Amino acid sequence: MTGTLDGLLDGEPAVVTAGVERLASALVDQGVAVTPVDWSPPAEGTAEALAVIAADPRVPDANRTAVDRLLSARPHLVGVTTARAALGLEDGAFLHAGPPLEWSDASGPMRGALIGALLYEGLAADADEAVRMAERGDLALSPCHHHRTVGPMAGVVSPSMPLFELRDDTSGGTSYCTLNEGLGKVLRYGAYGAEVIDRLRWMERVLAPLLGAAVERHGPMDIRATVAQALQMGDEGHNRNRAGTSLFLREIVGDLVECEWPTGDIADAVRFVNGNDHFFLNLVMPAAKAAADAARDVPGSTMIVAMARNGTEFGIQTAGTGDRWFTAPAGVPDGLYLGGFGPEDANPDIGDSTITETAGIGGFAMAAAPAIVKFIGGQVADALRHTQAMYEITLAENPAYQIPILDFRGTPTGIDVTKVVRTGIVPVVNTGIAGIEAGTGQVGAGLVTPPMACFAAAVRAFAEPRYRSGERPRAPHAAGPERP
Amino acid sequence: MTGTLDGLLDGEPAVVTAGVERLASALVDQGVAVTPVDWSPPAEGTAEALAVIAADPRVPDANRTAVDRLLSARPHLVGVTTARAALGLEDGAFLHAGPPLEWSDASGPMRGALIGALLYEGLAADADEAVRMAERGDLALSPCHHHRTVGPMAGVVSPSMPLFELRDDTSGGTSYCTLNEGLGKVLRYGAYGAEVIDRLRWMERVLAPLLGAAVERHGPMDIRATVAQALQMGDEGHNRNRAGTSLFLREIVGDLVECEWPTGDIADAVRFVNGNDHFFLNLVMPAAKAAADAARDVPGSTMIVAMARNGTEFGIQTAGTGDRWFTAPAGVPDGLYLGGFGPEDANPDIGDSTITETAGIGGFAMAAAPAIVKFIGGQVADALRHTQAMYEITLAENPAYQIPILDFRGTPTGIDVTKVVRTGIVPVVNTGIAGIEAGTGQVGAGLVTPPMACFAAAVRAFAEPRYRSGERPRAPHAAGPERP
Repeated sequence: MTGTLDGLLDGEPAVVTAGVERLASALVDQGVAVTPVDWSPPAEGTAEALAVIAADPRVPDANRTAVDRLLSARPHLVGVTTARAALGLEDGAFLHAGPPLEWSDASGPMRGALIGALLYEGLAADADEAVRMAERGDLALSPCHHHRTVGPMAGVVSPSMPLFELRDDTSGGTSYCTLNEGLGKVLRYGAYGAEVIDRLRWMERVLAPLLGAAVERHGPMDIRATVAQALQMGDEGHNRNRAGTSLFLREIVGDLVECEWPTGDIADAVRFVNGNDHFFLNLVMPAAKAAADAARDVPGSTMIVAMARNGTEFGIQTAGTGDRWFTAPAGVPDGLYLGGFGPEDANPDIGDSTITETAGIGGFAMAAAPAIVKFIGGQVADALRHTQAMYEITLAENPAYQIPILDFRGTPTGIDVTKVVRTGIVPVVNTGIAGIEAGTGQVGAGLVTPPMACFAAAVRAFAEPRYRSGERPRAPHAAGPERP
Repeated sequence: MTGTLDGLLDGEPAVVTAGVERLASALVDQGVAVTPVDWSPPAEGTAEALAVIAADPRVPDANRTAVDRLLSARPHLVGVTTARAALGLEDGAFLHAGPPLEWSDASGPMRGALIGALLYEGLAADADEAVRMAERGDLALSPCHHHRTVGPMAGVVSPSMPLFELRDDTSGGTSYCTLNEGLGKVLRYGAYGAEVIDRLRWMERVLAPLLGAAVERHGPMDIRATVAQALQMGDEGHNRNRAGTSLFLREIVGDLVECEWPTGDIADAVRFVNGNDHFFLNLVMPAAKAAADAARDVPGSTMIVAMARNGTEFGIQTAGTGDRWFTAPAGVPDGLYLGGFGPEDANPDIGDSTITETAGIGGFAMAAAPAIVKFIGGQVADALRHTQAMYEITLAENPAYQIPILDFRGTPTGIDVTKVVRTGIVPVVNTGIAGIEAGTGQVGAGLVTPPMACFAAAVRAFAEPRYRSGERPRAPHAAGPERP
């Protein structure tokens, strides 16, 4: 760490201005070259912790280790299983998106999805009975993230639900995600009508075993390679997955055709995937989860390894603070609304799909997907600007995920929570919007601003003795959420 | 046409500069706002004709009519047929790309493809016999364009070859194109080895009838809608068709699965399409042909309705000059080369695929497909620049074909040959590069500069009495090529 100031005064001095514009324009008037930057003071109450982190000699190497692990992951789709088989999930147990949550704190769409899952499992005869069971405390709730799993929107997983199984060839880790149901009236948006339950049963009975047989014939499918291609085809991997869905289907369909299944079922399965441009999201998410999990538990690293929302709170975890959650109230997304819906119908931010941004795609790769503004609102210039801003808060650029329009620059990857707090720039997240009432379904899609408070809380934690040099992070899965 | 000068002197005068930069910088030094434009004198010998065209009162309306017809086309894939059935092509008759051509003038790849077609049809036992037949004049050669057909590269069509059949719902016109063979050693690049002929026979025996049955089950497929989507997914429709190929396959595969054919054949067919990202080119091309043909035979219109190359000459046709060809020697493309090949292996420009640029996509839509520079060379900024330049020589923007990164601006569409001659800006064309020796196959891909001489010749023709006001264009298919 010596000699870093060498040469500081050798070149022409450069003027960097932040804040008050009049000062900058005064210099410009005098012919001085000025580089204006967005700057605001660090989030309140983080100064001491930032000083502790700056003085910790482990941090640069730890962050390099964490982001290298994230970038080195090679997640492959290896099979289709069920939550009962793969995770040992028992009757009455349900996983959900985001940080830990009880029924009493659950939002409308989360309650709707849990009601739907009780109906789907045959544990309740109707919605009223489901609500009574939930209120009695019959449901064992646990975050997907505590089970190597991620779920979009409500993210509810029950024992009978099929899961994609991914394996990271580099770390050997596995990850899981449900199969995507499509848009509109679907469980993950909190709808639980008969059409929702019937579709889930068809997915369990036909789609999942058929895809499982095809994946077995095909052999492991490299999801990182498919995402890389999709980013060159206008996807960003979170709310635009038309290319990924197309590439997945064309890759698997030869093996699907050769499965010894009734022709009508195979035709139904390919038409279902063709009819749902978000199908590939549920492969991008576990691929991102596998990569982020590979970066967990690196003492001293301030890199974020999970961002997730349960519809009530937004939570993050970092590589240096084990499985401890730092949470704050979730914001309400703003964007474009379907049919007769408007902002008053929007539930607060929900879902594990922010694992895409955690891994450097989704909102972070919007420059690759300018057409997404037709789905989430805003202008094409915003899509470029959002990606550019994310380079300010990340540790690396992903050489595998390139953005053609930025001259094939790698996506901004590995959020450093200290950079978020220092710059005031929060991760950009694009998202579907769930209806606030249980049973509604999707009402729109847009952008949401994560709460600075949870990033500030994570930074403050690094000042605690247990995370300082020489200490080890706590054991996995030990901690409940921590509210600032 | 009166009153167009009203208001000319009401506003602030603006200075537009062209050429000598010193004059512009002198004005800038004096604080005068200057708009520099690229300008060069019109191509030699066109001044008189340009004056005739400028004085012809029919021209603006005629060009509006022509480009409206082009933009209004709604080409649908309606079936798979053969050249014998659809075009009445008889044994010994062969279609080829570009303007009319004799064997004696044919380039290596064109000869190679004709040799291959003779072998494929069983008319020659080997290449030597095929060459002797060709030299004796046994082959009846005719341009694809004279038969509502287009063919990529050599564009050779023989009676037994399968053709996609498209119908334009607006004009009622039909168009045809062969099925794409893939890359490398393929007939259209002039290769004619056993693997080439075997593949063509499999396409005739399995792929074409299977796709035909699937299209029949599916019903007419809207190719314009698919191209519009593909342009939002990084395709430009000429040398990048990965999205279009994906969208086509996912759309048709449900019906393919339900065809009563052996499973192995269906699996082979979907794997063949999945293995060839250019498969959709042979649907984009006839869609563009149907649109351009709808704009033919509009007296007074200076819009280009065909650009095509036969490997020896580059030829164009305009809406106002019937089926008369204006040709000049084809240039040699420059770009990226495969394996051990280099510029010395490149044949001059060849193929009807410039019908894509004629219809406002391909090179004209490269801003939609920045990743194409990895295939044809150059920088991302070039892709944007090429599209921007094409707005200078076109009559309209296609509202159906939007480019997200240009804020969803429509692709520049309908080349006005007078604008080409006035500005000196020739249409940008990206293209595969065929090996100069018969039998080689593809050696690379890149960009090519069409010869200004054929655009100048077309403009000069408008000064001839037969094309002036009140005259009608000549009857279709009556004219041979016209060399300047």
